[in-house]
Amino acid sequence: MGVFITFEGCEGSGKSTQLQLLKDYLTKLGVDFIFAREPGGTVISEKIRSIILDKSHAEMSDECEALLYASARAQLLNEVIIPALNAGKMVILDRYVDSSLAYQAYARGLGFDFIAKINDFALNGCPPDLTLFLDISPEDAFKRKGGVDESDRLELQGLNFHTKVYEGYLSLAEKFPSRFVKVDCHGEKLQTHEKIINILKEKGYLR
Amino acid sequence: MGVFITFEGCEGSGKSTQLQLLKDYLTKLGVDFIFAREPGGTVISEKIRSIILDKSHAEMSDECEALLYASARAQLLNEVIIPALNAGKMVILDRYVDSSLAYQAYARGLGFDFIAKINDFALNGCPPDLTLFLDISPEDAFKRKGGVDESDRLELQGLNFHTKVYEGYLSLAEKFPSRFVKVDCHGEKLQTHEKIINILKEKGYLR
Repeated sequence: MGVFITFEGCEGSGKSTQLQLLKDYLTKLGVDFIFAREPGGTVISEKIRSIILDKSHAEMSDECEALLYASARAQLLNEVIIPALNAGKMVILDRYVDSSLAYQAYARGLGFDFIAKINDFALNGCPPDLTLFLDISPEDAFKRKGGVDESDRLELQGLNFHTKVYEGYLSLAEKFPSRFVKVDCHGEKLQTHEKIINILKEKGYLR
Repeated sequence: MGVFITFEGCEGSGKSTQLQLLKDYLTKLGVDFIFAREPGGTVISEKIRSIILDKSHAEMSDECEALLYASARAQLLNEVIIPALNAGKMVILDRYVDSSLAYQAYARGLGFDFIAKINDFALNGCPPDLTLFLDISPEDAFKRKGGVDESDRLELQGLNFHTKVYEGYLSLAEKFPSRFVKVDCHGEKLQTHEKIINILKEKGYLR
């Protein structure tokens, strides 16, 4: 079996940058890995992604949104993640179940149980071995990013919403201490990258 | 509060014909009703519908499919059904939760509990007052229809699948006897229409 690593963080936490640095590092090292983003990563999941993120869909109900994320995840799990893990590969995901728990369960107030229920098969059938949470408050993150991306329905939700997401992540870190690791990312991007590499080495996933 | 009526049946059961006859009847009578089909009935739900029914999506996992149906349903419920019921209207749906139970839980073998869980909000929050099941076996239905519609991913599943769907519906009729009514529809379409009108009158939904 391969190793399953997920990246989590609020908007502007530098997740994309860190993922790119890690992919470059793993490629140089010759590690057999696959990478996917959530929601997305398959033809079907990317179509679901475009429905979720379309900013003209302001009328989308919270339940609909949560179920769409879970549907895109179910497809990715069956079509990509499980086959890759069975083939002994390292699987790196940009967001996974914890994003639904932080965004929908905590920030949208749908409750942990509802989101856990609809993600049950993913949570129980294939939890990540390691979840790296890029820890920076939304205030600091948006400051660093230089504002909000207005083409993205989720980034338009306001600071109050993103603060709830952040608090949701902190609750998850307490709930899943064995797999959830907080990575302070207020520093320079190469410092954060080094922290991530060290965690992967400590866990025995990299030499 | 209005009245919530759903239509269920296997492919080729004559559901579309009966729905059209009922809509014409209600319009003549001046009944204040709305009609929607599942999956669909809202801008977002119709986009989800097109992902579900696209026959190029043969790789779609059963869990993904079930969650997509539930997401389209959640949006329709919040945006259309609940407001219409609150406005005292009659709501008529072409398919609802029972389709997911018959197709995904029974025929695809995902189990009643899994499908019930992800449809919790609809099953518990807003069950139909009356479900009219157009009762005809898939063998008789396809015979009457003159074959399978090859542009529809679901119709291409074969007789064995549709027989399981049919048996699923019969189980639901036993499980929900207070709202589930079987309507024999082997006869002429106007005979079936008359049966439906009589049921609605007996229930007190029509004068």
